Amino acid sequence: MFYTDNKLQYPVRVDSPDPLFARALQQAIGGVEGEIRVAMQYFFQACGARGDARFRDLLMNTAAEELGHIEMLATAVALNLEGAPLSLQEEGARDAAVGAVMGGMNLKNLLSAGLSAMPVDSDGVPFDMSHIYASGNIAADMTANIAAESTGRTLAARLWGMTDDAGMKDMLSYLIARDTMHQNQWMAALEELGGAAGAFPIPNSVPPEAEQAEFSYAYLGFQADGSEPAAGRWSEGASPDGKGRFATQPLAALGQTPDLGPARPGSGAQSEQM
Amino acid sequence: MFYTDNKLQYPVRVDSPDPLFARALQQAIGGVEGEIRVAMQYFFQACGARGDARFRDLLMNTAAEELGHIEMLATAVALNLEGAPLSLQEEGARDAAVGAVMGGMNLKNLLSAGLSAMPVDSDGVPFDMSHIYASGNIAADMTANIAAESTGRTLAARLWGMTDDAGMKDMLSYLIARDTMHQNQWMAALEELGGAAGAFPIPNSVPPEAEQAEFSYAYLGFQADGSEPAAGRWSEGASPDGKGRFATQPLAALGQTPDLGPARPGSGAQSEQM
Amino acid sequence: MFYTDNKLQYPVRVDSPDPLFARALQQAIGGVEGEIRVAMQYFFQACGARGDARFRDLLMNTAAEELGHIEMLATAVALNLEGAPLSLQEEGARDAAVGAVMGGMNLKNLLSAGLSAMPVDSDGVPFDMSHIYASGNIAADMTANIAAESTGRTLAARLWGMTDDAGMKDMLSYLIARDTMHQNQWMAALEELGGAAGAFPIPNSVPPEAEQAEFSYAYLGFQADGSEPAAGRWSEGASPDGKGRFATQPLAALGQTPDLGPARPGSGAQSEQM
Amino acid sequence: MFYTDNKLQYPVRVDSPDPLFARALQQAIGGVEGEIRVAMQYFFQACGARGDARFRDLLMNTAAEELGHIEMLATAVALNLEGAPLSLQEEGARDAAVGAVMGGMNLKNLLSAGLSAMPVDSDGVPFDMSHIYASGNIAADMTANIAAESTGRTLAARLWGMTDDAGMKDMLSYLIARDTMHQNQWMAALEELGGAAGAFPIPNSVPPEAEQAEFSYAYLGFQADGSEPAAGRWSEGASPDGKGRFATQPLAALGQTPDLGPARPGSGAQSEQM
Amino acid sequence: MFYTDNKLQYPVRVDSPDPLFARALQQAIGGVEGEIRVAMQYFFQACGARGDARFRDLLMNTAAEELGHIEMLATAVALNLEGAPLSLQEEGARDAAVGAVMGGMNLKNLLSAGLSAMPVDSDGVPFDMSHIYASGNIAADMTANIAAESTGRTLAARLWGMTDDAGMKDMLSYLIARDTMHQNQWMAALEELGGAAGAFPIPNSVPPEAEQAEFSYAYLGFQADGSEPAAGRWSEGASPDGKGRFATQPLAALGQTPDLGPARPGSGAQSEQM
Amino acid sequence: MFYTDNKLQYPVRVDSPDPLFARALQQAIGGVEGEIRVAMQYFFQACGARGDARFRDLLMNTAAEELGHIEMLATAVALNLEGAPLSLQEEGARDAAVGAVMGGMNLKNLLSAGLSAMPVDSDGVPFDMSHIYASGNIAADMTANIAAESTGRTLAARLWGMTDDAGMKDMLSYLIARDTMHQNQWMAALEELGGAAGAFPIPNSVPPEAEQAEFSYAYLGFQADGSEPAAGRWSEGASPDGKGRFATQPLAALGQTPDLGPARPGSGAQSEQM
Repeated sequence: MFYTDNKLQYPVRVDSPDPLFARALQQAIGGVEGEIRVAMQYFFQACGARGDARFRDLLMNTAAEELGHIEMLATAVALNLEGAPLSLQEEGARDAAVGAVMGGMNLKNLLSAGLSAMPVDSDGVPFDMSHIYASGNIAADMTANIAAESTGRTLAARLWGMTDDAGMKDMLSYLIARDTMHQNQWMAALEELGGAAGAFPIPNSVPPEAEQAEFSYAYLGFQADGSEPAAGRWSEGASPDGKGRFATQPLAALGQTPDLGPARPGSGAQSEQM
Repeated sequence: MFYTDNKLQYPVRVDSPDPLFARALQQAIGGVEGEIRVAMQYFFQACGARGDARFRDLLMNTAAEELGHIEMLATAVALNLEGAPLSLQEEGARDAAVGAVMGGMNLKNLLSAGLSAMPVDSDGVPFDMSHIYASGNIAADMTANIAAESTGRTLAARLWGMTDDAGMKDMLSYLIARDTMHQNQWMAALEELGGAAGAFPIPNSVPPEAEQAEFSYAYLGFQADGSEPAAGRWSEGASPDGKGRFATQPLAALGQTPDLGPARPGSGAQSEQM
Repeated sequence: MFYTDNKLQYPVRVDSPDPLFARALQQAIGGVEGEIRVAMQYFFQACGARGDARFRDLLMNTAAEELGHIEMLATAVALNLEGAPLSLQEEGARDAAVGAVMGGMNLKNLLSAGLSAMPVDSDGVPFDMSHIYASGNIAADMTANIAAESTGRTLAARLWGMTDDAGMKDMLSYLIARDTMHQNQWMAALEELGGAAGAFPIPNSVPPEAEQAEFSYAYLGFQADGSEPAAGRWSEGASPDGKGRFATQPLAALGQTPDLGPARPGSGAQSEQM
Repeated sequence: MFYTDNKLQYPVRVDSPDPLFARALQQAIGGVEGEIRVAMQYFFQACGARGDARFRDLLMNTAAEELGHIEMLATAVALNLEGAPLSLQEEGARDAAVGAVMGGMNLKNLLSAGLSAMPVDSDGVPFDMSHIYASGNIAADMTANIAAESTGRTLAARLWGMTDDAGMKDMLSYLIARDTMHQNQWMAALEELGGAAGAFPIPNSVPPEAEQAEFSYAYLGFQADGSEPAAGRWSEGASPDGKGRFATQPLAALGQTPDLGPARPGSGAQSEQM
Repeated sequence: MFYTDNKLQYPVRVDSPDPLFARALQQAIGGVEGEIRVAMQYFFQACGARGDARFRDLLMNTAAEELGHIEMLATAVALNLEGAPLSLQEEGARDAAVGAVMGGMNLKNLLSAGLSAMPVDSDGVPFDMSHIYASGNIAADMTANIAAESTGRTLAARLWGMTDDAGMKDMLSYLIARDTMHQNQWMAALEELGGAAGAFPIPNSVPPEAEQAEFSYAYLGFQADGSEPAAGRWSEGASPDGKGRFATQPLAALGQTPDLGPARPGSGAQSEQM
Repeated sequence: MFYTDNKLQYPVRVDSPDPLFARALQQAIGGVEGEIRVAMQYFFQACGARGDARFRDLLMNTAAEELGHIEMLATAVALNLEGAPLSLQEEGARDAAVGAVMGGMNLKNLLSAGLSAMPVDSDGVPFDMSHIYASGNIAADMTANIAAESTGRTLAARLWGMTDDAGMKDMLSYLIARDTMHQNQWMAALEELGGAAGAFPIPNSVPPEAEQAEFSYAYLGFQADGSEPAAGRWSEGASPDGKGRFATQPLAALGQTPDLGPARPGSGAQSEQM
């Protein structure tokens, strides 16, 4: 169950409203690396968590925080739209600057939302909940969360660099700090699950007969001229999961040229295919 | 540039065609944890790679492999649809079994594709390329790849458990091994980038003034009764990135109750809002 | 800001797990008339609310409730998947019943989520946030909310009729009651905004010169034979907004046959079009 | 069955073509509050209408009108694209104004459609038919239609305010009038169905045992500090459906802390979860 | 402008309602090869047609027909859902057959639409208007229409084969005939535009300097071993557009290994990438 | 199986980077007429090809080429983003030109991808794999391919006209030539399948009893006033498939006014509908 207090987790202040920056901020709300994504991802992972109950608690607690981040950003979007042009002729004769601002802002923020935030990205594409990764495997979920916070903090850093509004920089520096925490938090949770050696390969419950071990640590080359692909940590030495050693292998197609046979009568194919 | 030899990377054999398993296999083609996703993700990450050229090579080489995996799975889907009913009355009178098979299979595999594979998931939802995470930050990309291979191997393991067809089990045990390699490979690449201490928090290029450090390692509680959330590795001790120490903090809203002010005349609001 | 207590708003109990009913329940989570929709719709309407501050409060308070409803339903989905078949051969030889259950359930609940809930509808289609109607016009928002709760309660009633599991019927009868409240609540809010005569036509801030009043209450017929369409309350008498009287009008096209002229050279048309 | 006469319902004239306004008009074609939505919504509601045959007639008749509105708007988009730049160097040296116009217009109108209209919104997002609400419950359909026309008229009013082209203002003032009619028309239809007291709560066919009446008119508070949420018409007095009285209730979680138990072996979870 | 007469273009009769066939028919409504697609595609092509006015007329006239086909199919879906189970316990104790029917039908047809048709495909995926190809090039549009009718007739033939309901077979045989007409009609229109030699390559308005003619008729091989790909009509003889002769060419990469250089400071990359 | 050599098929050079042209080029990557579409369409058609094995070879060989085209275009996008503004204040005080460039570019190319290409169209809409037409009917597939290459070459020609960058014009003139080849190639393949007279109507395997031949070549008029629609090659003379003669027919509705009867109790309708 959720409760609210109608307050913001951290102050949101915009010194110089900027409709184009409002559009950029939408990416942090409804982009695939945005806050709806993490809020809902942690929420659904919590709802499906099995095993150690502390993980459900950790996930739902963080989901609550991320909901508050959406609220902060939605406020920031609306404040940046303060004073955005409502008409292409705003303030007298047609003006290239008005056109440029209106052309650059997300028109739906005006046309569909009346100068408010929407659950869309910086190009007006609505967020699609297929991005909620909640796999039922707690370690896989943790890797998805580390990834989400990595792209999330990258986005926040880009937004921080894009503006010189002191209020917005302040808010973003808070969110960047929280992303640092969350990256570390999910890495810590993965450590509790055994870290690289204990949790990987994920899932760690695959029975041995389900895996052809001779291909599990082989770096195969798909270079057209048969040359070896570039060597690195991934092609030699012990594997990070501690269960094998990397080795580069020459590759040859092991399988057949596929042949599906003729089409069945009545299957809607051309008669020549049957 | 890409080249093909029209062969399969590994043999694909179906001993007992099963239209319902064909539907399940579609998840490994067009699901968000499927092979189109990884093939295209590595491809676009390669195209945008900057810095050490070996990463572009590693990514594009692996993209080539994953394209071959789509091909294997598409062949497996078609072979499993061999003999699927084309009519609700197939082989005589209406039969509950025919209905159950047809009801259980993905009808588009028949209606749209003539008993072939499609770039859709197990519920017939088309793959959406917004799932291609290619962030321009090479470390963030590696975390996304670890996550993709973690859910990918989890899916492959579930498919392996779902069938007792020896051919299908053989193919899946090969793919499970390759996912083990790829999980390890991306972890190894992350090690080359400095590992937890060197690469995190991602991006590692954020200037100090862009982060409010007092919130970077704070585990905040959002429990309605003010109690502490469940403790764990994430609430005490050194942070995995080696740059701080976790501490639980009591939480109070630091921000204001948002007030957007009245609506502007001409903005399409009700007159009472202005 | 949001807080959680990790408890359910109302008890969720499943007496006889049923994977097919789990699939049906997904519609109440991720369907367009489901709980994610109302939770996020009220949330974004609150974030964009301007004018009387009580509306923001009302909206955010109800958003908090709906988040808890998602949690209840996600729990119900997982409990209904208890014991769902993991393999097509579960418990011995291949069995038509296993196939029927597995064919009838949403395979992604198993393959992607490990027997947990997902933010998708009953056919596995992910929820798309374009369904979050938050218009910046508070009265238009209230009509969208009445509509959402009307289809929401219709769905809940259908689900109640679909099962005879006592636990599920109990949970659904609670949700049906809450939908009754919410339908009434949004109608009451619309009354506060002036009701039919005060709030309509929405927006009530349109200047008179922006509307060709002679067409504002005309019921136009588009019957191919020129006959009048079926009469009703909508074709005679005072209009509900109290500002006009309905009248049926014969229709003739007032506009021209469109002619866009020839294509411009360089616009990619065929040369014959230029 | 449908027939056409290749004419426009109302004259469409553009005095000063404006590619940015063309982009804005796209919202009225392919936005979620646009004309494709209402045309198809009324069409599908008509196709599924059961009971009083006049409703099917009313719905299909209005669907025919809305198809004509798409045609008007598509013509308006093309006329506004007249003279839009085809090249970034149009008319001599690179020019900031050309860049601003081209940056502000929807590039797909040029690249995909050769300066014509598309079934997309003002950000180029294609219309998605999941927005066609046709519930099989005639009263719920009416509420969806009132909502659609409320946001539709809000959009039209915003577009009217955005331009000072006399031709476009004339066309939009016609569409605004038609939206007034349609809002009233669906409210009138709802009156025929019994109005607030007869039709609500929707559906009005729910048997009493399917609803826990003690929660049907309770305004529950989800304020973190336990305070009452803001009072209003929604928290006291008779409910609009005439079947209860609103009352604020203190809230306590009635349900349990969810516990899904351990993961099943073979379900793809980590071994620690089992 | 459009008009309706509330009648069906051809009789729709269902002798033995079949909920699974209702689901299959949904593909012909909301599938990518279905009737919404062609209706809207011809409609938008008409709205954007430039040049010879007869094409606009031809397109809009056919759009009107296709709208009527949606209506026929929507009626057929509803009639096939007649008697579909509303509950998992319909008619007594839980019954495998009820489960199989309900599992096999599209649950949204019941849960969202009350046993009516929806604008979705046979897996419940909503139609997405990005499938409306209206390119502004009249010849390209004709090729898109031939393609649409080819897959459309293939689908109709598969549906005809799937059922033995005499009413449904009768309706489908009518639609198959109309698809024959429409395939021929668009080929005839392409002939008016000059046929293969006059209209191709599309667009026929490309200036010679915009094309590197030495690659215009070259069949390039991308075989990994450098062998020639399979020969055919496409590798020798005059090209169908009459403007060249096919020739197989050995292939070598003409371009460079891409190098994007280091990442820019401030672009959110890792510091190692700069 | 696929192999790569990390080289580009043709040189990609950008003389004057232009972020707005980068956005336009995205249409050729992730637009519905772009290179992802053809690469994946030919790939899936190859995977499902039945009958003459040369078609699988032709399709997969061309899929390999198109993958290389994505790579070329992705490189071109990144090179055009060279030097794009990272901040709204880049190089001193706020500048209208910076705003116009940033407003005109696709913000996700910066925010999500760090100045690299993405699998999205020119408005940032992600590519959706439902556009992969692979019907299982080889002739229908060929028509889809001709259509794809027709809109593809139209797009390339528009892009060529949009820029005067010599490097970009060179690359595009290569791609235009390849599209000429591919249009011809698929027409040639259709000739191998019998051409208009042999392959059409598609599928050519429909049994005569599945088609009501009297409607197969009838040009029906849907003009509201009963007039004949515009005559043309499509209304008289032999049909292109050589199997009939076109004739215009007056139209009358042959079917009934649909009547679905009352709603069933328990189906969630209003009580008045039952």
